[in-house]
Amino acid sequence: MSRFWSKTVQGLTPYVPGEQPKMARLVKLNTNESPYGPSLKALAAIAQANNDSLRLYPDPNSDALKATIADVHELEPNQVFVGNGSDEVLAHVFQGLLKHDNPVLFPDITYSFYPVYCNLYGITAKTIPLNDNLEINLDDYVATKQNGGIIFPNPNAPTGRGLPREAIRQLLEANQDSVVVIDEAYVDFGCESCIPLINEFDNLLVVHTLSKSRALAGLRVGFAVGHPALIEGLERIKNSFNSYPIDKLAMVGAIAAIEETSHLADISRKVQATRARLINQLDELGMQTLPSQANFVFTKHPTKDAAGIAAFLREHNIIVRHFKLPRIDQYLRITIGRDEECNQLVEVLKKMFA
Amino acid sequence: MSRFWSKTVQGLTPYVPGEQPKMARLVKLNTNESPYGPSLKALAAIAQANNDSLRLYPDPNSDALKATIADVHELEPNQVFVGNGSDEVLAHVFQGLLKHDNPVLFPDITYSFYPVYCNLYGITAKTIPLNDNLEINLDDYVATKQNGGIIFPNPNAPTGRGLPREAIRQLLEANQDSVVVIDEAYVDFGCESCIPLINEFDNLLVVHTLSKSRALAGLRVGFAVGHPALIEGLERIKNSFNSYPIDKLAMVGAIAAIEETSHLADISRKVQATRARLINQLDELGMQTLPSQANFVFTKHPTKDAAGIAAFLREHNIIVRHFKLPRIDQYLRITIGRDEECNQLVEVLKKMFA
Repeated sequence: MSRFWSKTVQGLTPYVPGEQPKMARLVKLNTNESPYGPSLKALAAIAQANNDSLRLYPDPNSDALKATIADVHELEPNQVFVGNGSDEVLAHVFQGLLKHDNPVLFPDITYSFYPVYCNLYGITAKTIPLNDNLEINLDDYVATKQNGGIIFPNPNAPTGRGLPREAIRQLLEANQDSVVVIDEAYVDFGCESCIPLINEFDNLLVVHTLSKSRALAGLRVGFAVGHPALIEGLERIKNSFNSYPIDKLAMVGAIAAIEETSHLADISRKVQATRARLINQLDELGMQTLPSQANFVFTKHPTKDAAGIAAFLREHNIIVRHFKLPRIDQYLRITIGRDEECNQLVEVLKKMFA
Repeated sequence: MSRFWSKTVQGLTPYVPGEQPKMARLVKLNTNESPYGPSLKALAAIAQANNDSLRLYPDPNSDALKATIADVHELEPNQVFVGNGSDEVLAHVFQGLLKHDNPVLFPDITYSFYPVYCNLYGITAKTIPLNDNLEINLDDYVATKQNGGIIFPNPNAPTGRGLPREAIRQLLEANQDSVVVIDEAYVDFGCESCIPLINEFDNLLVVHTLSKSRALAGLRVGFAVGHPALIEGLERIKNSFNSYPIDKLAMVGAIAAIEETSHLADISRKVQATRARLINQLDELGMQTLPSQANFVFTKHPTKDAAGIAAFLREHNIIVRHFKLPRIDQYLRITIGRDEECNQLVEVLKKMFA
């Protein structure tokens, strides 16, 4: 505490990201990064832009990047907003589109940054419990007519469970007076995107990141797509915060990565194959794993304590994510790595459970 | 306007950055970038980091970058905060350290982003007029005892006029109950930095950017130094907003650029030499130019309209910045370019005034 802090600072409980340890020979299955590298075309584009012209500011409007995103998703550039990772995009979404007199709704178990944003901007939130199978039940959201917005990841994190587009369409039909934000950070690993609904609903915003299926967590680019009026609201916030959130290298890297759709498809296919294999292996070990449409699994052992398993794995240079939170403190979230990394995980678990 | 916008969005008047035109063969003297390229070591460090490991998140705490900044300025790493350009740093400063019941004080003529931040975060501001010579008079700030903080650039923008460190020390001695932020974006072009006062005053925060004297506007890195309690307040805001504002490439590029202090000295020396030459040339043309300690000059013609001069320059592929604001609408802010660029400017002005 300091007398110089604003009341806002005094009330904050900041988000704690998964560690980025500096250890060598680590099997890093804790922050849902891609086990495969980014598009070589992205690296080539960055190499080409890495020159004297870094002395100049980037395009503050990121027009070229927006045009690329619009092209790939068959939208107009004024339906696209970009930011320094989807976390920055989400921050602007909370401040610009979800801060209203009525509370914003999100699941009790979800991306743990959402309540942090609410705290930062003084937004009232109402959490809606997942059902006993840790699934989102959209009827519970429709039932809360007086809301200032709805946000959830699809598939949800850290559960990995996804909803079909048709279910979200029904939610949108029933909830037309506040913004519905679908956070599709993990959508490319087997879940249906709601981007095809953008032109039907003026209150739908879909958020994407390049940190997962595009293997560019180190570059910090995310985006949102929605009705031009929603995008304009976000632009107004962004232009009152930081004119140039996307640097010149991130700009060209992101453009090349988004254009090379085959690279994303390749990563997605490989991750899904390893995920199916890993879920079988975990089953054989007696672990109970939720169905996953993401690049991670959410799993627990019927008798062994999750914190103990995480600690044992760590002793063997494998890190996974454990959330000490109600309802899920016996689960571990394990990122899908390469086959050999997942095999290593399974071997260590076998040793522990033997 | 949209019914989905928060009240915050509805009340915003976003900042308008100088243009980044896509025209070729432009003499770009409008956004105070360096006319010389960045450190070659920075480019080499970026090239080395441009690889497969971009699939991983950056260090969320930017420890290596903070250590480098601390080293160069003889501070401890917990006295350093980093962000996506000094604009992001300033945004967090306003929300975290300048939002109080009493109004924040800044000059009537200054960086025009300050009132935008106040609007974004609901901060009351009181502007203090520059004197008739467009200088900051610090006695006017001391006179306003009940303030929620004080912020100004040194040298000020867009005037280019700086204050000696000793004057700011006196302000700090007289104003110990609120944070004093010295925005030193342009300090390296002949003004005294207040960083040596950091260990004396627990309410002093000094903000720097890599966009000017380090020629890395395209990379988006800025930082603040101050007492660890001030830095902790900023970290709490940052960690409630975006875990990873500095991407992997910006991180290594910034470290290399900050380490190579000779490159900064070289840019500073060349810009100051050209500035002295340009001020003489403008004098000969009958222009009235304020003394400048920045990488730009603020100049006016006794009879010719500033907007007209800017338009004429633009027709000749030269762009400068004109602010349509009270008291300064007859001035132009001209970035110090290379000698040949400034000569070109002078030739066009000669033609216009002939």
